[in-house]
Amino acid sequence: MCQLLGMNCNTPTDITFSFSGFAQRGGVTDHHSDGWGIAFFEGRGVRHLVDHESAATSPVAELVRRYPIKSENVIAHIRKATQGEVMLENCHPFVRELWGRYWVFAHNGNLKDFEPRLHGSFRPVGQTDSERAFCWLMQELAKSHATLPSVEELSLTLRELVPQIARHGTFNFLLSNGDALWAHATTQLYYVLRRCPFTRATLSDEDMSVNFADHTRETDRVAIVVTQPLTTDEQWLAFEPGRLYTFAQGDLL
Amino acid sequence: MCQLLGMNCNTPTDITFSFSGFAQRGGVTDHHSDGWGIAFFEGRGVRHLVDHESAATSPVAELVRRYPIKSENVIAHIRKATQGEVMLENCHPFVRELWGRYWVFAHNGNLKDFEPRLHGSFRPVGQTDSERAFCWLMQELAKSHATLPSVEELSLTLRELVPQIARHGTFNFLLSNGDALWAHATTQLYYVLRRCPFTRATLSDEDMSVNFADHTRETDRVAIVVTQPLTTDEQWLAFEPGRLYTFAQGDLL
Repeated sequence: MCQLLGMNCNTPTDITFSFSGFAQRGGVTDHHSDGWGIAFFEGRGVRHLVDHESAATSPVAELVRRYPIKSENVIAHIRKATQGEVMLENCHPFVRELWGRYWVFAHNGNLKDFEPRLHGSFRPVGQTDSERAFCWLMQELAKSHATLPSVEELSLTLRELVPQIARHGTFNFLLSNGDALWAHATTQLYYVLRRCPFTRATLSDEDMSVNFADHTRETDRVAIVVTQPLTTDEQWLAFEPGRLYTFAQGDLL
Repeated sequence: MCQLLGMNCNTPTDITFSFSGFAQRGGVTDHHSDGWGIAFFEGRGVRHLVDHESAATSPVAELVRRYPIKSENVIAHIRKATQGEVMLENCHPFVRELWGRYWVFAHNGNLKDFEPRLHGSFRPVGQTDSERAFCWLMQELAKSHATLPSVEELSLTLRELVPQIARHGTFNFLLSNGDALWAHATTQLYYVLRRCPFTRATLSDEDMSVNFADHTRETDRVAIVVTQPLTTDEQWLAFEPGRLYTFAQGDLL
């Protein structure tokens, strides 16, 4: 299984602390070392970094740990290859454009016999089941709406589409268009809502802690979604399997 | 005017040396400091780095200078904003997917009254004339071919499309799908073909030289395309205005 990390905030926030622990799972505290990737929204723009080296040793991951990129929506992924070789084109997250907005997607799990009819404008570049699932989601979203709908409307459409993929196997995923973060678990995902009063948090994967009260304002809201809880002293909540969660402005809708 | 840099090779080659001089133009030896970006093909995959800081001071540019990413096709761009604000979504190069392949595009120049009808699957995310031109090219390529054509066929189609944009103003651009590098100048671009016998080259923008003979094999071929010659001791050839150049396997077709 791969590892997923997502962040959705109401103000641009750096993911340095959470990513630092997460990156250890790419080869140090866990064995997911078949590449990794991260995408940061900044307004409508996206910074998209992928690497087929392990996240624990990659110089690009080192950059992310040291350079505090502030973003309202982030999706990161550490890969344990199940389908598709260890090549750059198979590294998550994947990015496509629809309705003049970028869409970012990462998946953890394995889809069996998932060969959807891709007759639209979204074709996989690599060989993974994950990119096929993303292309099919984009194609079906494009068919369902002529222009960018609201976050609520998108959630309704996704709620109809997601089960059609999930019946093929494990479909834990994160999706964002920069306005919201959609997350779905078949097996496991956890989330935490960081908000006032902010407290100290200690990483499970690395000897590091931070007092969020020193780095935040009272109004800040941050939602973190991850495969396994990142800290030992925060209240992580397990996803209800099969339910689509929508995070916007650092809150669960 | 912005600055363009492209590389096409017959073997994965790092662009550290050329990029090092090029990046100085983002704020040190020239004033193009409204962001920059670079895209590296690795097989079908793309590493895509964009930053709205100046290339001379950006930590991401520092990473590119220090971390020798090997690629057969690279496109880099340093921006001097003419249309569109200094925001991440307006930083070149732009990336889209067509026929299951990524396409990378960067532009230098200014297109006046260029408001093409975009009725297909490619919409600009930012506000630049450049991204509009790229989306229109992708739309028209998609209309002209059902699946990925050969490099030669693509060159023929591009030769019909490019003048329709170029009549709106300055259209110096670089385009790649990982198989070839297409380049076109209305005003200025230069290229050099590096091949055996390899010699010493000295950067114009920085006190640095390299003896390519120490880093290459006899069969290596590298084509570099750039707005202004990067070195003082190589034979740079000026582009013939209005002609589309196709570079593949480090050679001019």
